[in-house]
Amino acid sequence: MNHNVADSDCESTEPLRYLSKDEAVAMETELLRDYRFGQQQLTEILGHACAVAITKAFPLGTLGKRQPTVLVVCGPDQNGCIGLSCARHLRVFEYMPTVFYPKRSANSLQQDFTVQCERMDIPFLSYLPTEVQLINDAYNLIVDAVLGLETELGEAEEPFTNIILTLQGVKIPIVSLDIPSGWDNDKSSTDGISPSVLVSLMAPKKCALGFSGTHFLAGRFLPYDIQKKYDLNLPKFSGTDCITELQ
Amino acid sequence: MNHNVADSDCESTEPLRYLSKDEAVAMETELLRDYRFGQQQLTEILGHACAVAITKAFPLGTLGKRQPTVLVVCGPDQNGCIGLSCARHLRVFEYMPTVFYPKRSANSLQQDFTVQCERMDIPFLSYLPTEVQLINDAYNLIVDAVLGLETELGEAEEPFTNIILTLQGVKIPIVSLDIPSGWDNDKSSTDGISPSVLVSLMAPKKCALGFSGTHFLAGRFLPYDIQKKYDLNLPKFSGTDCITELQ
Repeated sequence: MNHNVADSDCESTEPLRYLSKDEAVAMETELLRDYRFGQQQLTEILGHACAVAITKAFPLGTLGKRQPTVLVVCGPDQNGCIGLSCARHLRVFEYMPTVFYPKRSANSLQQDFTVQCERMDIPFLSYLPTEVQLINDAYNLIVDAVLGLETELGEAEEPFTNIILTLQGVKIPIVSLDIPSGWDNDKSSTDGISPSVLVSLMAPKKCALGFSGTHFLAGRFLPYDIQKKYDLNLPKFSGTDCITELQ
Repeated sequence: MNHNVADSDCESTEPLRYLSKDEAVAMETELLRDYRFGQQQLTEILGHACAVAITKAFPLGTLGKRQPTVLVVCGPDQNGCIGLSCARHLRVFEYMPTVFYPKRSANSLQQDFTVQCERMDIPFLSYLPTEVQLINDAYNLIVDAVLGLETELGEAEEPFTNIILTLQGVKIPIVSLDIPSGWDNDKSSTDGISPSVLVSLMAPKKCALGFSGTHFLAGRFLPYDIQKKYDLNLPKFSGTDCITELQ
């Protein structure tokens, strides 16, 4: 019987690495191609972990409004699909998510996660009020799943530039998934939206350097070889936790 | 804005239902076809939840052997694939799983989950010792992911009948996923293997009625409509837990 002891001693005293856009894209390509992870699987893992992070940052019972309402704003690509998965898990955790998903992808992955939300009776908004006070009044917080690694603001078409302008004006807290929408992946930003919570997916990106809000790392599944290849120096996750807070 | 309050009040005082094989198959078909869940997604959710259940039943540090070894025995179908997913999550949780997967499926889902394990440096056995003492000595526990809903013993080809005979002889604890291998779905069994822990997937099956070991329910994602349609009367899950122990 072969009992090679796989090396689990990946926790390092070296500092956590913040990936450039090129590195993050290369790592994900490798996960899908060589490690044979699936998009559906990663979307499920990451959306679940984002929802868990939200329960830590904004526990039920500490929310200001009578109902535990959350507005999840989803973009057209992968970040938006993780937002759909996150919304469904928030519903399971007894929050009341509402989804705004203005530009639905024809991709079957996105369609499947959309139907899953619809069949959980999660309401979908047909438009986002430009009057931010309506948003401030209706929701406890916003999940920003608009733009991620694969789309930056310059490339984003309408209605996303306007949506980001609206999100810049809201007073309720914003939780951004992976990259605050409108920020460049490779540098931190002072203009654009200003999330109070950032959930980095798999590994933090360069734009998160200097982020001063609450910062979670979500997605505890990276094979050790890929952690080493990209020198991630991930922190230790506790017990069976799928997220960890970064200091 | 549409703020229909979806009904989250699914916890019931009615007794938990134990599904027949036909009901369980019908529910899963509906989840895949109408609710648009994917096989990859369900395998990931359920394998993860089974690993979490194992950490509760057999915490690291309470295991008798020096190394936290676990033998995961995987059958050719869906139950085996959930076993592969479980093995990978056990590795992430710092256990030392070894997989025995004697009859590999040509299905790409199974192949992907196999590669994911291999790339996590999880060893695969080429044969199962018929001398049970070797198994008792090498591992703390066995995960039985051999046969599930879709295959019963009568239908199982070699080598599975012999594997089940071997598992009947081991002295270390067995954790069965969904249905103890060799049991009929619809009735409890006194012959066949005798697991100390049973992890029911999504909803318990009729064979679990009267099971006297530690019994977990894994998989907290079922849409409320399907819970109601099948009168599941699921117990409440705590916080963001993906499992709950049944009494």
